[in-house]
This record gives sequence, structure tokens and C-alpha cells, in this order.
Amino acid sequence: MLDEEKGVDARLQAIKAAIRVVPHFPKPGIMFNDITTLLLRPKVFKDAVEIFVDRYRDMSISAVAGVEARGFIFGPSIALALGAKFIPLRKPKKLPGEVISESYVLEYGTDSLEMHVGAVQPGERVIVIDDLVATGGTLCAAIKLLERASADVVECACLIGLPKFKGGCWLNGKPVFVLVDCRQ
Amino acid sequence: MLDEEKGVDARLQAIKAAIRVVPHFPKPGIMFNDITTLLLRPKVFKDAVEIFVDRYRDMSISAVAGVEARGFIFGPSIALALGAKFIPLRKPKKLPGEVISESYVLEYGTDSLEMHVGAVQPGERVIVIDDLVATGGTLCAAIKLLERASADVVECACLIGLPKFKGGCWLNGKPVFVLVDCRQ
Repeated sequence: MLDEEKGVDARLQAIKAAIRVVPHFPKPGIMFNDITTLLLRPKVFKDAVEIFVDRYRDMSISAVAGVEARGFIFGPSIALALGAKFIPLRKPKKLPGEVISESYVLEYGTDSLEMHVGAVQPGERVIVIDDLVATGGTLCAAIKLLERASADVVECACLIGLPKFKGGCWLNGKPVFVLVDCRQ
Repeated sequence: MLDEEKGVDARLQAIKAAIRVVPHFPKPGIMFNDITTLLLRPKVFKDAVEIFVDRYRDMSISAVAGVEARGFIFGPSIALALGAKFIPLRKPKKLPGEVISESYVLEYGTDSLEMHVGAVQPGERVIVIDDLVATGGTLCAAIKLLERASADVVECACLIGLPKFKGGCWLNGKPVFVLVDCRQ
């Protein structure tokens, strides 16, 4: 193993350890993977952002789309480091301008995601950021929104994912990159 | 005027110009100051974050609290640059752990804000970030939450504020720092 790989591995272990699991939230039986405890550790939080930035630095990414609300916590820092724009993908009726909308099925209910018309230009290379991927429904809606605007979705990136995503999984034909396994 | 001041002034003008005003959102008569158009301009977005970071760099800030959801877009980047933790202040029932809660009156309705117990330590020097200050109700709730946890709220910082905040205003005995005037 290269020294660099050892370093990444140690950082991933620290990231996983900093995520708290809260049982029975938001409803009985759900094990909620809580990233707020990671945010309280500046070094670990910084490492997580840097792993994403290092991955996308030379990939000509011009936009980072973040899914409300926890995607807003990670996406903008990655966008700033890449010199890319940040596009918030929001819950219904939150964006004030003209929007396009996609609905999706959640683990616990249904919802939709909206994006401002004009936020992305045709052909722009975009990554989509959220904190966690479980069923992938939210990310699929995000990909559809961006593709309806003719953007080129390069990858979806999450801190946490169900183990099936860890090996490299695809949603709507797009790769999903995950830092650490979801604890269940 | 010093060269440095001229630079800040030019940056503030660009920030103000990048904010879009959407009339009659979320209800008739409200002029909504929309920061999503600023996020589409990486240089301007970066300047806004850097002005905050430069202001707080030598003030021994150990925590940045951000108000959901737009405070999440600016707060974490400022926290990372300061080497501080990020504390999300969220709408009810969004935080999975044990919380304390404060309700407040909004320009268009009432709401409350929650913070995880243990997010901040007694005596920690904290700044509170949101995109906009109008009545100040949300920021007052944020200050109360942090003070109930014995934190030292150093300042509240917003991109946009009603003109009365621009001259230097106080909320609950705490200074409010605002980059640009709200357009109404």
C-alpha cells in the first residue's frame, strides 16, 4: 500500500468514526447516520471536503449541485475549492425564481426537488453532492433535473452510502462515489 | 481611501449586483433577495466568504453556527477556513439527537430553531451566519439557543440586511455585521 493510500484510509476511518448513529430516527426501526457530529471536528470535516476536492480537481467540473439541506453543508466548500458554481436543489416552494421539478419516493415518504431554470448551462460538467445515499431516489431526481437542463452529470458524491454503493454503483447511468459505509 | 478599502468596496458592489430581487415571493408584497444567483458566480461567492473569513480570522472563533437552510451554504466554508466547528441550527424535528429549541416570529409566520445538546461547549466563541437579516427574529432565536448552552456569541453575520442593520445594529446585545443592503 502506498503512503498516500494509507493516509486516505486513516482519514476515512476518522470520518466513519465521527459519524454518529441515532437509532429510531425519524421513525422506529430507522438507524439514522448523523453527520452533525463530524461537523464538530474541524480536522475531520476538512479531510472529508478535501477528499472530494482532490477527486474532482482535474475533471473540469464547472458546477456542484447540492441537495437540500445536508448537501448544502458540503457542496459549497467543494465548489469554492474547484472554482465552480454552486446550484442548490431545494424542496418545493423554497426557490423564488422559475423552477423545474422532479418528484421521488423516499425511504419514509415522497417528496420533490426543484432547480432554478438557468442555474446550469447545456453541456456543463456537474457533480451532485448529498450527505447520504440509501435508496438513491433523491439522487435520481437530482440527475433528472440536471439532465432536463442538458447538463453533463459526471458523478454523484456522498459521504455515506449503503454498502452496495461502496463497491461502485450507478444511478440513472451515472456513477456514485461514496466515502464510507452506512451503519445500519 | 486605502487600496485595500477600494478592493473591499468593489467586491461589495459585485456581491450586491449578483443578488437577484424576486418580487412577490413567498407572498404578494414581499421583495425576496435571492442569493442563488450569487452562487452561480464562483469569484463573487468566494469574495463573500473571504470577507467574512478576513473579519473573523484573528478573533479566536472556535464555532460557526449556521441557520437552516441558507446559512448552511455560507457557514461551513467560513468554519473550514477558520479551523472552527460548524453547528447547524435546524427547523423542528430535523436533528436526530437530543435538542434544545427556541421559537420566533417571522415576517411571514412563526417557526422554531433547534440545536443539538452538546454541539457547543461553555465559553466557546461563536459567530452566527445567515444569508439575510430582516426583523432579526431568527437570529435572536439563534443567539438564545447558543447562550442557553453558555456559548459566547461574538457576532451575527449576514450577507444581506435591512438598511437599519448596515450602520451597525445589535440584537439581544450582540453586534450584527452585514455585507450589503437589502433591496426592497
